[in-house]
Amino acid sequence: MSAERYAVGVDFGTESGRAVLVSCVDGREIGASVYPYRNGVIDERLPVPHDGVPLEPDWALQDPEDYLRTFQEALPALLAETGVDPADVIGVGIDFTSCTMLPTLADGTPLCLLGDLRADPHAWVKLWKHHAAQPEADRINAVAAERGEPWLPRYGGRISSEWFFSKALQILDEAPDVYARADRLIEAADWVVWQLTGTETRNSCTAGYKALWSKRDGFPAGAFFAALDPRFEHVVDEKMSRRIVPIGVRAGGLSERAAAWTGLPPGTAVAVANVDAHVSAPAATVTAPGAMVIIMGTSNCHILLGDREEPVEGMCGVVEDGVVPGLFGFEAGQAAVGDLFGWFADTSVPPDLHERARRLGTGVHEVLEEEAARLRPGESGLLALDWWNGNRSVLVDADLRGLLVGMTLSTTAPEIYRALIEATAFGTRVIVDAFEDAGVPVERIVACGGLPDRNRLLMQIYADVTGRELAVAASSQTPALGSAMFGAVVAGAARGGHDSIVEASSRMAHLRSETYRPVAAHHAVYDRLYPEYVRLHDLFGRGGDDVMRTLKQTQREA
Amino acid sequence: MSAERYAVGVDFGTESGRAVLVSCVDGREIGASVYPYRNGVIDERLPVPHDGVPLEPDWALQDPEDYLRTFQEALPALLAETGVDPADVIGVGIDFTSCTMLPTLADGTPLCLLGDLRADPHAWVKLWKHHAAQPEADRINAVAAERGEPWLPRYGGRISSEWFFSKALQILDEAPDVYARADRLIEAADWVVWQLTGTETRNSCTAGYKALWSKRDGFPAGAFFAALDPRFEHVVDEKMSRRIVPIGVRAGGLSERAAAWTGLPPGTAVAVANVDAHVSAPAATVTAPGAMVIIMGTSNCHILLGDREEPVEGMCGVVEDGVVPGLFGFEAGQAAVGDLFGWFADTSVPPDLHERARRLGTGVHEVLEEEAARLRPGESGLLALDWWNGNRSVLVDADLRGLLVGMTLSTTAPEIYRALIEATAFGTRVIVDAFEDAGVPVERIVACGGLPDRNRLLMQIYADVTGRELAVAASSQTPALGSAMFGAVVAGAARGGHDSIVEASSRMAHLRSETYRPVAAHHAVYDRLYPEYVRLHDLFGRGGDDVMRTLKQTQREA
Repeated sequence: MSAERYAVGVDFGTESGRAVLVSCVDGREIGASVYPYRNGVIDERLPVPHDGVPLEPDWALQDPEDYLRTFQEALPALLAETGVDPADVIGVGIDFTSCTMLPTLADGTPLCLLGDLRADPHAWVKLWKHHAAQPEADRINAVAAERGEPWLPRYGGRISSEWFFSKALQILDEAPDVYARADRLIEAADWVVWQLTGTETRNSCTAGYKALWSKRDGFPAGAFFAALDPRFEHVVDEKMSRRIVPIGVRAGGLSERAAAWTGLPPGTAVAVANVDAHVSAPAATVTAPGAMVIIMGTSNCHILLGDREEPVEGMCGVVEDGVVPGLFGFEAGQAAVGDLFGWFADTSVPPDLHERARRLGTGVHEVLEEEAARLRPGESGLLALDWWNGNRSVLVDADLRGLLVGMTLSTTAPEIYRALIEATAFGTRVIVDAFEDAGVPVERIVACGGLPDRNRLLMQIYADVTGRELAVAASSQTPALGSAMFGAVVAGAARGGHDSIVEASSRMAHLRSETYRPVAAHHAVYDRLYPEYVRLHDLFGRGGDDVMRTLKQTQREA
Repeated sequence: MSAERYAVGVDFGTESGRAVLVSCVDGREIGASVYPYRNGVIDERLPVPHDGVPLEPDWALQDPEDYLRTFQEALPALLAETGVDPADVIGVGIDFTSCTMLPTLADGTPLCLLGDLRADPHAWVKLWKHHAAQPEADRINAVAAERGEPWLPRYGGRISSEWFFSKALQILDEAPDVYARADRLIEAADWVVWQLTGTETRNSCTAGYKALWSKRDGFPAGAFFAALDPRFEHVVDEKMSRRIVPIGVRAGGLSERAAAWTGLPPGTAVAVANVDAHVSAPAATVTAPGAMVIIMGTSNCHILLGDREEPVEGMCGVVEDGVVPGLFGFEAGQAAVGDLFGWFADTSVPPDLHERARRLGTGVHEVLEEEAARLRPGESGLLALDWWNGNRSVLVDADLRGLLVGMTLSTTAPEIYRALIEATAFGTRVIVDAFEDAGVPVERIVACGGLPDRNRLLMQIYADVTGRELAVAASSQTPALGSAMFGAVVAGAARGGHDSIVEASSRMAHLRSETYRPVAAHHAVYDRLYPEYVRLHDLFGRGGDDVMRTLKQTQREA
């Protein structure tokens, strides 16, 4: 047993940071520790003493000190709890929400820690779900389309307000002084690695998926940035870095300072940063083409590997070395999945079902699932378009909205709940079809994230709708496990880790033995309903009928 | 005061019979008495001792003795309660749900009272919402269309399974022995008048709206009936009557037997029968073209008067003398209104709103209305097609279903509630437009029925959507008041009544002083949303997109 070595993965989520300690031999979880961010999501006003500063709608900030406190609190707790000898911990990896970015000085000091800038919201961390840079995203999309930027097809033809240059440009637009003071604009993912190692690195995953970088072409040309704003022409050279490090590479060793925070030995290998969704793929055993990983939570994120860069309609992005070194990682997404079911449970379920949940000592989701599972495919007579939060793939249109059709006076809440699950499954099938139509095969699906644990009906419906077998990752903490795996990789096999993420995945990642296979009779019914979904999807999503946009416009004017 | 005379109206509803005594001078209600039918709606099994006879789905029967018990119970109670001298009651009118029909012997004895037929469901009264004659309705529609029957356009091109010949043909199809034993097939409306007077009459309203009769052309030709079934060729001459009496005519005087039941003097004038919705028009002050009466309850029924018989798309029917003698009465309808709001309140409202209703000591509808009233038009961002129970006008398609579009993760239950109200208002506007397009003007709207009392927001939205002033009938019992008015008419002015329904209406019917006027700014928003409703209405309702029918078919197969 003394030969067993361990790696730590730290997953920086939206509300908390989670540190997990796993065995490098078989990936089993030895312990976990969570630090709930003191300042959480900052979306109404800045923290005390600057809480007189209100935030505009669509803003979402974070406090970078919460990330450091995750190291200072969760890591020592984890070591204490597990009793593992810190000397046996050979590597650390981290993953982060993305794009979550901040402006810093040249030494990495966040601008929001400077006394004179602390009251300026633009000096803080812009969280992934900060959506106030939509005007900048619109400008980027318009200019890119007009100039025929060659990188645009890699992102399905449109970039998001959440992404790096949208947020950076918003700082320049609205707070040119903050922009001027920023020596660096950096992903929080890379910033925390910098804090651990003392060395600034930039990882290929966030650069590729969120900052328009590619291994072959680098960043967009200065002329493009200049077309957005002359002051923006040299943003890459002035505030970022052209040295992008592939994931799976050692960023450095743990600094003395970080060793003191965490209780781990100085010099412990630290991997370059990664993104929560993408790092989940190898943690879900997927390191080769053919299997689509779906991270199912509040939203769905689809990760798929390919040998070549294929243009796929409406995907979020394709990045070489973005998920597994040496392969192209494709990303697609659905903007509302768990959020949609949560919305329904919160707003649309009558008291008797809540009461039954209370009586059974369970949740209303469980009661809905149980009732919905009694229904046969097609029995509800309902069909939905799952666009309650817009469409992220393949239409890439945030203005789209939900639709439900087929209601009668006999329609029940569990029937609608099931129709919403089916709609997200149809949406996933549209994405699967888009990949296959572009020549990127999807033979099977591996699910991970929070939903597969909680909703077996959802898994079966995804299998029945897509006609593919669904496996489920054994770990319910795939991001942290994946990060730990990258920690084991940068430590290397010689030190008790692994020499590649493929090898780490084959040893440390596992699937549950139980899988969900499509039931032929169910698949046949969904094969009849799917063309109905696709027809409505195309009608309302591709400009045939603009009612959703008109309603949004009318709502704004009201 | 001794000169004041009274009339009695008896409204036979779905669950009970209601007798109202009103002043012939000003229509004020002196008293009311309700008899809840002992056997109510018979839709699962026949009453004891034949409760071993189960009914098929879609069946709905009634017990004719419940109608007689209404006379025997409610009338004496009404006289006792009001203390009015029976000699001062000069006339009686009745109205009924329709088409509600039964088979009888030549003397009026219902076949279900015969010992050997009591266990046969076909011997009982078929209630208006008996929907098991759909195959017969389909056959009638197919044969009529094929033969190009001249009466078909008067009914918007399609007749209902609820109507007289659908039900009569079902008896012939499924119980030829019952059909053979029936000397008469008769509307329950006419049957109760027969029981009061001893004289069989057939009224122009049910004959016109439910039995394909018109003043100019009479009933369909024998060849048409023969094409349905050779045994059906002479149904009119064998089982019905060609002598159709216009409403507003005296059917006879109260028989000795009925006088004993009711406590009214023998010989009291009794009007020919009427239908609940249609008799409401004069009770809502409308006896001339230009004003549309909407009876708002579980469904909406629209009554409009015209000088000429115009073909109006998708109306339920147009009948000369059908509502007011000398005019053409047009009828249209919406199949789910109060039922739709009730469905929503029962199935789709979360516990916190129910809890608030409880705390306030009110109902969940009131809480929804209060919240929905805070919203501006367009603010919900939602639009619905109100077809939870199919579409009765102008599409006349029971297979259509509900649709809701525009939902986001911020959508609330009161927003959906408001969108459903707006959808029924848009549906009414489609009907208004169909009439105006056909040259039948709709200058203003008078609402009556159960909903106007309960939902002021609904009234305002109808005004805002249609751009027309909405008045509300003063009486909340317009059917019974209308029936009493016809009682006063058949008594005549010389006896303290009135000589015409127009005169009776001008004296006995009233509007509330408060009306609902369109708010210009609201109307402007709805004018922008209405074309969206119409486009979706036409797309899903006129065959452009058959998803609703496909879903229904898939549901059936599941």
